Amino acid sequence: MTQPIQAESLQRLCCDIFDAAGAPKDIASAVAESLVLTNLFGHDSHGVLRVKQYVSMINDGMIKPRERPRVKRRFGATAMVTGGYGFGQIGARCTAELAIELAQQHGISAVSLGQCTHIGRLGEYTGMIAAENLIGICFTSGTMFRGWVTPFGGRERVFGTNPMSFAVPSDDSGTLLLDFATAGAAHGKIVLARAKGTPVPTGMMLDKYGRPTTDASVLDEGAVLLPMGAHKGSGLAMMMEIIPTLLAGHRPITSPDFHFGNPTLMMALDPRAFDEDSDFRRHVGALMRRVKAAAPAEGFDEVLLPGEPETRSYRDRAKNGIPLPDAVWDDLRGVARDLGLAFAGNT
Amino acid sequence: MTQPIQAESLQRLCCDIFDAAGAPKDIASAVAESLVLTNLFGHDSHGVLRVKQYVSMINDGMIKPRERPRVKRRFGATAMVTGGYGFGQIGARCTAELAIELAQQHGISAVSLGQCTHIGRLGEYTGMIAAENLIGICFTSGTMFRGWVTPFGGRERVFGTNPMSFAVPSDDSGTLLLDFATAGAAHGKIVLARAKGTPVPTGMMLDKYGRPTTDASVLDEGAVLLPMGAHKGSGLAMMMEIIPTLLAGHRPITSPDFHFGNPTLMMALDPRAFDEDSDFRRHVGALMRRVKAAAPAEGFDEVLLPGEPETRSYRDRAKNGIPLPDAVWDDLRGVARDLGLAFAGNT
Repeated sequence: MTQPIQAESLQRLCCDIFDAAGAPKDIASAVAESLVLTNLFGHDSHGVLRVKQYVSMINDGMIKPRERPRVKRRFGATAMVTGGYGFGQIGARCTAELAIELAQQHGISAVSLGQCTHIGRLGEYTGMIAAENLIGICFTSGTMFRGWVTPFGGRERVFGTNPMSFAVPSDDSGTLLLDFATAGAAHGKIVLARAKGTPVPTGMMLDKYGRPTTDASVLDEGAVLLPMGAHKGSGLAMMMEIIPTLLAGHRPITSPDFHFGNPTLMMALDPRAFDEDSDFRRHVGALMRRVKAAAPAEGFDEVLLPGEPETRSYRDRAKNGIPLPDAVWDDLRGVARDLGLAFAGNT
Repeated sequence: MTQPIQAESLQRLCCDIFDAAGAPKDIASAVAESLVLTNLFGHDSHGVLRVKQYVSMINDGMIKPRERPRVKRRFGATAMVTGGYGFGQIGARCTAELAIELAQQHGISAVSLGQCTHIGRLGEYTGMIAAENLIGICFTSGTMFRGWVTPFGGRERVFGTNPMSFAVPSDDSGTLLLDFATAGAAHGKIVLARAKGTPVPTGMMLDKYGRPTTDASVLDEGAVLLPMGAHKGSGLAMMMEIIPTLLAGHRPITSPDFHFGNPTLMMALDPRAFDEDSDFRRHVGALMRRVKAAAPAEGFDEVLLPGEPETRSYRDRAKNGIPLPDAVWDDLRGVARDLGLAFAGNT
């Protein structure tokens, strides 16, 4: 069962929780905003579902709620930010802001983020970059606990789900935004299938013997997730295991020196540095309209643009509320109660 | 039927052909080297098979064999190179060299290449960057003639095969190199399947009604190629249709202002700009060894690294010669004869 909750009240509740858990007001508010925005975009696995986990990580000393990111090193058009194991979202916003500033000066920039906890939805940060009329690219690796993804052809957990995001400014609805895991399916979606007792789509998972399976119930029995797009996606997953990881001063999941977190690399490019009169946004918009106008293949009603399902979810949920499962709602109430918070929903 | 040809003699022949077709000696030699290297790496569709096409493009004025690339614009850590419709390989090498130089100065760089003809194997250029202990990233779009790839969910040719390449330096065999088309299968492979009368693997192609097909014979009857990795690869194909294209001053394939070519963006990143003691190469090598050691999945004998099939092909062909199909050999002899060349193989 779910009940619709308005974004504003959900955000207020989450903000109060992080505040009570020790975060300064501005940090509590920004993390709550990030999580609720993720629910609005329809990615519930990365939304307020995480509040309970974050509070437990604060209690375990894995998230330091008062910690603020700082620039550890600068060289030319690059920088290294360290999150000091504060909230990942705060580190990632700071990283995006610095990438924007450096790209405006140098035409391109790359800023890495290390010592950061879960950063949430990558599209938030590439979207920030595109909102400044820059091209945003984000590579992320790591995990809070362990890897799930096997290299193509294998059956061992060697990579994280290692997402990538690209965002470009457009005259059509503002931004064209692509955000995906290099795993075929997110770990959270397999967990959801297991909870519902539904099969996982084919090509997403192998059992512990390395045989294709659609049975989500074997997830914790040595199963592995497959990369997207066979050997090509496997190569991307491997590059993500290397590039953001090492540039942020972290180590791959399989390294003896692995430390949990989401090491990240953000790049920003300024189209005007290349071609002052490029009319970049207009050409992106024209291509978006052309893709939307493509005749659908058998079994499809329409062609969806990258980011279009998210935009539709946003429109619906901003108006009608976020359909929060009772279990998540109960968890939030429980966390609030444990922190001594009184709120309207807590009876 | 094929006959094994040693790389050196093949390269000499191709060099003589381009020389006779009007290219200065150094350009003729560099293009011949690029093409033969591609055959050595096993990608025959992008190797000396192209010589006949290139010579015919010279005759049609599409390739200007004497033209040299020049830097059109510089800003900060970026630059735009224009190839002036000379050989794409010459423009791409110049672009990679400038990307290396700028990354050494600024920590990261981005150089675009416009007005360039077919650039061949992307891995050659990211490999040049990685050989300087930098991370190389290359995005390419465009086509010499038309697009082939539909957005996921559609059945219209909107994108090129839009390849990407990533290369990182390693202490294990020098470089880890990933190079792939965002199309599920290269156009050349479908043409090959059609010639052999063999089926195309599933998931690569739709017929003109938008129905999945494995029948390569419908290629020229309105068939479309699918992107790799469903909606994720489709999003990457779309980003490649935008980013290198517009930053090189070109337009997408579906634009009324489309002009043939391979607009390209090369980026280079210096790991030492981020972390002076990162020991980047050693960590890459360790991950390569870990991936190789992964237990194979059902149906696989071993896990292959990105670039490993190419390295194996190189070792074999450098020793035993390049197995050139008679038809390609006949074409090369015919082109040489038409250009008035006498050579040992031309009796």
